[in-house]
Amino acid sequence: MPRVLILNGPNLNRLGQREPDVYGRVTLAEIERMCRAHGATHGIEIDTLQSNHEGALIDAIHGAAETADGILLNAGAYTHTSVALHDAIASVPLPVIEVHLSNVHAREAFRHHSCIAPAVLGQIAGFGAASYLLALDALRLHWESQSA
Amino acid sequence: MPRVLILNGPNLNRLGQREPDVYGRVTLAEIERMCRAHGATHGIEIDTLQSNHEGALIDAIHGAAETADGILLNAGAYTHTSVALHDAIASVPLPVIEVHLSNVHAREAFRHHSCIAPAVLGQIAGFGAASYLLALDALRLHWESQSA
Amino acid sequence: MPRVLILNGPNLNRLGQREPDVYGRVTLAEIERMCRAHGATHGIEIDTLQSNHEGALIDAIHGAAETADGILLNAGAYTHTSVALHDAIASVPLPVIEVHLSNVHAREAFRHHSCIAPAVLGQIAGFGAASYLLALDALRLHWESQSA
Amino acid sequence: MPRVLILNGPNLNRLGQREPDVYGRVTLAEIERMCRAHGATHGIEIDTLQSNHEGALIDAIHGAAETADGILLNAGAYTHTSVALHDAIASVPLPVIEVHLSNVHAREAFRHHSCIAPAVLGQIAGFGAASYLLALDALRLHWESQSA
Amino acid sequence: MPRVLILNGPNLNRLGQREPDVYGRVTLAEIERMCRAHGATHGIEIDTLQSNHEGALIDAIHGAAETADGILLNAGAYTHTSVALHDAIASVPLPVIEVHLSNVHAREAFRHHSCIAPAVLGQIAGFGAASYLLALDALRLHWESQSA
Amino acid sequence: MPRVLILNGPNLNRLGQREPDVYGRVTLAEIERMCRAHGATHGIEIDTLQSNHEGALIDAIHGAAETADGILLNAGAYTHTSVALHDAIASVPLPVIEVHLSNVHAREAFRHHSCIAPAVLGQIAGFGAASYLLALDALRLHWESQSA
Amino acid sequence: MPRVLILNGPNLNRLGQREPDVYGRVTLAEIERMCRAHGATHGIEIDTLQSNHEGALIDAIHGAAETADGILLNAGAYTHTSVALHDAIASVPLPVIEVHLSNVHAREAFRHHSCIAPAVLGQIAGFGAASYLLALDALRLHWESQSA
Amino acid sequence: MPRVLILNGPNLNRLGQREPDVYGRVTLAEIERMCRAHGATHGIEIDTLQSNHEGALIDAIHGAAETADGILLNAGAYTHTSVALHDAIASVPLPVIEVHLSNVHAREAFRHHSCIAPAVLGQIAGFGAASYLLALDALRLHWESQSA
Amino acid sequence: MPRVLILNGPNLNRLGQREPDVYGRVTLAEIERMCRAHGATHGIEIDTLQSNHEGALIDAIHGAAETADGILLNAGAYTHTSVALHDAIASVPLPVIEVHLSNVHAREAFRHHSCIAPAVLGQIAGFGAASYLLALDALRLHWESQSA
Amino acid sequence: MPRVLILNGPNLNRLGQREPDVYGRVTLAEIERMCRAHGATHGIEIDTLQSNHEGALIDAIHGAAETADGILLNAGAYTHTSVALHDAIASVPLPVIEVHLSNVHAREAFRHHSCIAPAVLGQIAGFGAASYLLALDALRLHWESQSA
Amino acid sequence: MPRVLILNGPNLNRLGQREPDVYGRVTLAEIERMCRAHGATHGIEIDTLQSNHEGALIDAIHGAAETADGILLNAGAYTHTSVALHDAIASVPLPVIEVHLSNVHAREAFRHHSCIAPAVLGQIAGFGAASYLLALDALRLHWESQSA
Amino acid sequence: MPRVLILNGPNLNRLGQREPDVYGRVTLAEIERMCRAHGATHGIEIDTLQSNHEGALIDAIHGAAETADGILLNAGAYTHTSVALHDAIASVPLPVIEVHLSNVHAREAFRHHSCIAPAVLGQIAGFGAASYLLALDALRLHWESQSA
Repeated sequence: MPRVLILNGPNLNRLGQREPDVYGRVTLAEIERMCRAHGATHGIEIDTLQSNHEGALIDAIHGAAETADGILLNAGAYTHTSVALHDAIASVPLPVIEVHLSNVHAREAFRHHSCIAPAVLGQIAGFGAASYLLALDALRLHWESQSA
Repeated sequence: MPRVLILNGPNLNRLGQREPDVYGRVTLAEIERMCRAHGATHGIEIDTLQSNHEGALIDAIHGAAETADGILLNAGAYTHTSVALHDAIASVPLPVIEVHLSNVHAREAFRHHSCIAPAVLGQIAGFGAASYLLALDALRLHWESQSA
Repeated sequence: MPRVLILNGPNLNRLGQREPDVYGRVTLAEIERMCRAHGATHGIEIDTLQSNHEGALIDAIHGAAETADGILLNAGAYTHTSVALHDAIASVPLPVIEVHLSNVHAREAFRHHSCIAPAVLGQIAGFGAASYLLALDALRLHWESQSA
Repeated sequence: MPRVLILNGPNLNRLGQREPDVYGRVTLAEIERMCRAHGATHGIEIDTLQSNHEGALIDAIHGAAETADGILLNAGAYTHTSVALHDAIASVPLPVIEVHLSNVHAREAFRHHSCIAPAVLGQIAGFGAASYLLALDALRLHWESQSA
Repeated sequence: MPRVLILNGPNLNRLGQREPDVYGRVTLAEIERMCRAHGATHGIEIDTLQSNHEGALIDAIHGAAETADGILLNAGAYTHTSVALHDAIASVPLPVIEVHLSNVHAREAFRHHSCIAPAVLGQIAGFGAASYLLALDALRLHWESQSA
Repeated sequence: MPRVLILNGPNLNRLGQREPDVYGRVTLAEIERMCRAHGATHGIEIDTLQSNHEGALIDAIHGAAETADGILLNAGAYTHTSVALHDAIASVPLPVIEVHLSNVHAREAFRHHSCIAPAVLGQIAGFGAASYLLALDALRLHWESQSA
Repeated sequence: MPRVLILNGPNLNRLGQREPDVYGRVTLAEIERMCRAHGATHGIEIDTLQSNHEGALIDAIHGAAETADGILLNAGAYTHTSVALHDAIASVPLPVIEVHLSNVHAREAFRHHSCIAPAVLGQIAGFGAASYLLALDALRLHWESQSA
Repeated sequence: MPRVLILNGPNLNRLGQREPDVYGRVTLAEIERMCRAHGATHGIEIDTLQSNHEGALIDAIHGAAETADGILLNAGAYTHTSVALHDAIASVPLPVIEVHLSNVHAREAFRHHSCIAPAVLGQIAGFGAASYLLALDALRLHWESQSA
Repeated sequence: MPRVLILNGPNLNRLGQREPDVYGRVTLAEIERMCRAHGATHGIEIDTLQSNHEGALIDAIHGAAETADGILLNAGAYTHTSVALHDAIASVPLPVIEVHLSNVHAREAFRHHSCIAPAVLGQIAGFGAASYLLALDALRLHWESQSA
Repeated sequence: MPRVLILNGPNLNRLGQREPDVYGRVTLAEIERMCRAHGATHGIEIDTLQSNHEGALIDAIHGAAETADGILLNAGAYTHTSVALHDAIASVPLPVIEVHLSNVHAREAFRHHSCIAPAVLGQIAGFGAASYLLALDALRLHWESQSA
Repeated sequence: MPRVLILNGPNLNRLGQREPDVYGRVTLAEIERMCRAHGATHGIEIDTLQSNHEGALIDAIHGAAETADGILLNAGAYTHTSVALHDAIASVPLPVIEVHLSNVHAREAFRHHSCIAPAVLGQIAGFGAASYLLALDALRLHWESQSA
Repeated sequence: MPRVLILNGPNLNRLGQREPDVYGRVTLAEIERMCRAHGATHGIEIDTLQSNHEGALIDAIHGAAETADGILLNAGAYTHTSVALHDAIASVPLPVIEVHLSNVHAREAFRHHSCIAPAVLGQIAGFGAASYLLALDALRLHWESQSA
């Protein structure tokens, strides 16, 4: 049974409370619950971690190399500044999907550049909580295409 | 029954023949067939159009305002240069999803900027033909959330 | 009797429906009617063309070299990206006036640069439909000064 | 009877003597006379001021808040460097039209950027002395549209 | 008894009338009155000057070298463009504090750079009229630390 | 009794030992003591935290949403690189004041840009330890103006 | 017998009439005649197409994949703006030579960058109509070296 | 007897007091006296003006068109920011020499660009007060070469 | 007996597994063993620490001020983004040598800039594990030159 | 009988040995021999010089003003850095053709800019040794067009 | 008797023949003769050297450290590209004056930056051959001020 | 017995006399003697060359392809400007190590970029004369690893 780490970065623990006009009112716990339900339907086990610490996110990516078959990464603001996360993704032989709740390209200029994009499999952005569910499906389709 | 226009831009008619190490061996006709099948499963009617003409893509977006409930747009190279497509999207009251076969951010620098991104609902990139199927699902989830 | 081509570029066919808070509620047909009325008052014949195709706009500029005495050009988004339109204007011996409905300099940064400006006679921007009428008057005053 | 301040900035007092191949041979006094005549025809009273002092231009804009119904501003070289003029315009509840004799976009690169453009109603540039007359008409059309 | 010059630059005479959502409804006269009252409490004599003329601000800074023990400078828009004010500050042996009513860094990009910052003692920005009172206190604390 | 978190970022624990010609000889413990004394005088309770970990600073800002009425943040070098701190500040409904010991704008170019500035209430920089005391007063004046 | 498509882009139909000091007085028809004559001498069949439509140029490049053994492309102003033409060239297994009448690098800055250069075999620029004849020879020499 | 206006800009009245390690201890009065003595030796009458007002410098340049045969201009900080001074110089038919006491290119980056340089005859910088005397000689040599 | 801290930053724990074509197959444990052996030969005690946490690296640099005589720092990706590490190095009176396994200048552009370089003694890059041994020798030679 | 100097710059003496996947296996001696043969066919005398010294290339260009009727210049890496070569070309009344073996625009970004391009007649790049033969023909066609 | 090296860089040997509208018709030999005559009048011995080789110019600057009391350097195009010449000037304890015949700032943008300016005593530009004579006087005045 | 060429570029002949606070008091002859002694200890023969001529450095690199087993290159200022040296290094099958006496990244911005870095094996900078000895060791370790 495949296993996916859903990894959320800085300030995503504030979802529901944080700028709801940008990020909506759904909490991270609810998103994780939706992912677990969606995973259950498709036979995927879900691990979750949220941290505001860049180092903890890197540790988690390294750890997933042993325990998971893919990663959903919403790196939050670190998306735009962290070369270290880019290198962490490149250091593990796992498919990693970059996920964003909002359409980052329609926001401030400093959110238009993604440091991690060159190292990931693909991006899904702008669909709110649904971005995560679509990313789970993208992983599934990726595994299928790999095993084909 | 909702209707979606799948709109493909310049050089996508060459899929299968064009740089297969970047874009894969699947043809556009096959992708459109997969979309129609996926649409059929979910009760979505699919219209398709491919053009190498920026103006024809704009005309099609305008036309869809009357005939469709959403657009999947792979604008190809026009993604990176066309302010006119940005304005075309902004001129219609439809959800538009930006789709890319490849992870554009892992390629040449001139493919990192999207002119159309600020006007779309969201982006899905990097999953090959599956990007289109995921985008169809994203539209469905968007309609659901809107009608909720 | 002098003849003026009023040439409108991409998305201007959507006027009235498109972002009315930016562009107002007047349609392109109404603007063209106002121009014809204004022309009639001053003995100017008016030709009109709108196209979303950059190539069609270039063709029309070339064609006007034979049929018109001046051009009013609202190139829409092509204003900001089209060197080819710049060269088309430079290739005909006609006065061309750059017209914009909105004050483009008060909007997004990508609307601040005009590719065509170095080739035109002058610019009139920010007065809504009145920009066109003022541009017609500007052409008249230009012809007068030339024949003086 | 509406009142318009025609405000000219640095070096415009040298018109007629200054680089006549760029600016023509007409003097500022003649332009002001043409404006007064044009104003008389349309029932508009004209005040004029020319100063080479940025501060004096700002003072005049502030003063016009009490005495005028609109401003024609040819800020000359301050157009390209003065944030203070931008703020002065934004600080008064009057329509201000940016006027230029020459097509500034066809000249040196340092004349392509206008600091004041985001604060004005619109721009008219490139028609020599006629730019002022067209701007007066633009103000009239603006008042009409406002009172409509 | 120490003496402080409170120097306000372009458009600050319009406070209360000018963009009240940005600058509030308090007038410059009221701010100067608050400063005088605050000075009286702490045994500081207050001189005030407002000018829209860059040269007049420079003259005042030079003059203060003879008559004052410190300067509070809200240079308004000249903050972002005036190297001459930078040099004026560097030419006098007085502590100068840069004051802003609004948080300039949260506004347009052209307000993010301060030409004068390298020459001043420190900056206080974003607290409305209170910025001036805090700057007076900052001067007092600076004098104390110098005489310690 | 209002409560303020005084949050210090990387390397500020080295104050007194670190480049004393830039930062002075006062230690962080002494600054915190001065703040507590100042707070006691004005009936403000003071919490303090210093961390070299970006994530710990974010955690502390989140935590303060429950326990404090305002934050004084000297983010040290993270000021210039951390979009995540910007987002953390924006995610809590507290006034946050950006504090710097030195006049950062008079130092290396890489210290001139503040990532967090758009999210804070205001900045106080350049007054050494006094910057903190002035910031406490700024918070007090802000609370007063809010409750007025 | 090898076949070459000579493809000319926007405004090249105006050759002879358009800025003759830059482009000379020779017409496109004459250039095409010279190419046909030169081709006849060397046993090369020549197809020609000129279009002001970016999309038509792309269509022609695609079509040549079936009908031609090489392409001479003078993309005119699209040289400097069209990523889509770059991709069209990369999508066909034909040698494409970039041709310019004038020395584009000795003209305006916006003509110094070629979007298509990375996808072509080589460039020949600055020799007027002779650029085309040299490019035909270059194709011949290329075929020879390939078959060697 | 030829007449030269020696025009000094902002903060040059502070010479001798202002940053003596950069500008030396000589006062402006002494420099003007040296220039008058040097002029007397060579039969040149000297007019002098110093102003901190950009507008006053422009007025003086205009005025010199009637009264002087050449200008020595040390525009101080306005050198680096004033397009209006550039235009003022271009508006008078006089040789203008740009003078600087210090080697501006060996100082801060914002002093490396001269707005006025394209309009002057030549530059002399870095020789302290002697820069003025050399510039007087340069004017003499220029007049000689013109009358030759 | 002198003591050296060998400090490794993010993702260096993945050495041997991570992109072996860039970084080789040697593990960090092996590098540390080689350093300890090399230190033993030259009478240098070696401490080692690897962390993916920027804050932990800063803490370790601070700590080394008490316990070590020099630092070898391979800051990994933080080299290119961390001003905080720059400041940490500047805050301790120890020689710090910047070490890289690969020739960072021959890789992606975002690896060409080093934030920490201005604060270190020197750089050694491109020699794989040998970079560390050479850096140990560089420290020895530095101590010798200091004590000479 | 016309005479052409074939001038090759730095590292071209290493042809055949140097990065053969970029530059091919042909040596410079072979290219020069091909040029002499081609010249003999068309009655052109060929002089050749290769130097790694920028100054020697400049000397040779100056010398050719007396001895040659045209120059073929492959300036190698100096193409991208030498303003002095630009000026040398501009200082002689000879047609100079810029030649490159490889398609420089398809390589590293630092090879995309040519300092010498604004001074030459035209460019031929990307055809290997054939670039030289085509350039000889271009010179011939140029002489013909000049004498026509 | 003081000795001055007059050092001329690339292409200055072509003076009189090279672009006479920019550089005039005077030859370098004539300029050197004028300098020798001027030197003779003031008791200064003149050495001269012209070279197109950057290395030869550096050698000459080094050599002058033993044989001369000052250098006049017209580095020609190397002014804009040579950091090595900057370092050569900084490596000798001699006053060096940067000389230009033309007003370089009024020409192409690539001539606006001087690599050597931060290392020289001062600049004199724009006075044709007279620039050299003025520079000789500047050296004399510099020696006087040094010995005062 | 392996052989190493120690190649020093412009102004390094001035070591000991040149800016001793930056480069120290050791002469190049002393550094070369230290290298020879170090080489003798490890059975490495040392050749040395210093030149201020870029072309001579390129010639020497080419020559070393026949006579040496590795190169130590301190290219001095040419490091920052010479693409030709980059290409020379790439044209020989030898390991080349970039050496600097000073920490170039802690100096002026124009010394931060190395043109040659992408072509060398590695860099050693900041250790004064010891940089050369460490580089010799680096070469030895490189040969060992290659022969392993």
